Amino acid sequence: MIVNATETDGPQINDITARAGVFNQEEVDCVRDIFDEYISLGPDESGYNFIVDRDGDQIHGFACYGKRDLANGVFDLYWIAVDPNSRRNGAGRKLIAASEEAVRQLGGRMLIAETSGTTEYESTRRFYLGVGYEAEASIKDFYSEGDDLAIFVKRL
Amino acid sequence: MIVNATETDGPQINDITARAGVFNQEEVDCVRDIFDEYISLGPDESGYNFIVDRDGDQIHGFACYGKRDLANGVFDLYWIAVDPNSRRNGAGRKLIAASEEAVRQLGGRMLIAETSGTTEYESTRRFYLGVGYEAEASIKDFYSEGDDLAIFVKRL
Repeated sequence: MIVNATETDGPQINDITARAGVFNQEEVDCVRDIFDEYISLGPDESGYNFIVDRDGDQIHGFACYGKRDLANGVFDLYWIAVDPNSRRNGAGRKLIAASEEAVRQLGGRMLIAETSGTTEYESTRRFYLGVGYEAEASIKDFYSEGDDLAIFVKRL
Repeated sequence: MIVNATETDGPQINDITARAGVFNQEEVDCVRDIFDEYISLGPDESGYNFIVDRDGDQIHGFACYGKRDLANGVFDLYWIAVDPNSRRNGAGRKLIAASEEAVRQLGGRMLIAETSGTTEYESTRRFYLGVGYEAEASIKDFYSEGDDLAIFVKRL
């Protein structure tokens, strides 16, 4: 069941990010830091909304989205990650559909997902294309030399 | 002379942003808010660096840049604006060259400038192209319907 994340979900969210297999330590730390902001300041003031796919005490995955400043109705899907042990149960698709629905409710008309252009992220890019995102733009050598930024966009 | 901005430059920076003719009130307020963060927290903690083109007590223009999270050596040129009364004296070119030099000193290898694709911003886009930026990517209808995001990049 997709619900808003609460404080006690922090350790499992951190664990899923670390075990997802594609995020480096700086990225794992970043998710932890913005989750702390979401908990301490709330979604409105922090600008971050966290949702989780919860099954009893277990979290199968999470997503984090928030409004982009200075653009009308544009939201970023900052993070989405699913427990490697919970893949193939549709948690990713449920999380992204719930993020889109929440963004629509907040008046959003566009959701942007940024990811890497390396082969390591090929399944991530296929995932976005499979749920209706367009490969809208890219910036060559963005993350580092040979590691492009790939910008996916869905009009809601 | 291009120097780091100090607290007393705030009112003139705010005035230049308001009179630049292309920024709406939300954008003017945003510049004021991040300038306050730059002054109260400093460039390292706030993530914002402000420089000004100063001539005695007068500010001809300002630029604001900062490091992009989670990308190696990537900086954003968040804002650059020149007093309409000081145009044609090269303040814009001096400010962008000084921003690039400062970014290089901080280990940056890429500077990104985002602007609008509307005709109102045509001179801004020509300015970036004229100082060596590439029109790298765009997102259709980003700011609002009919108002695309144009992403300019310079490799340093």
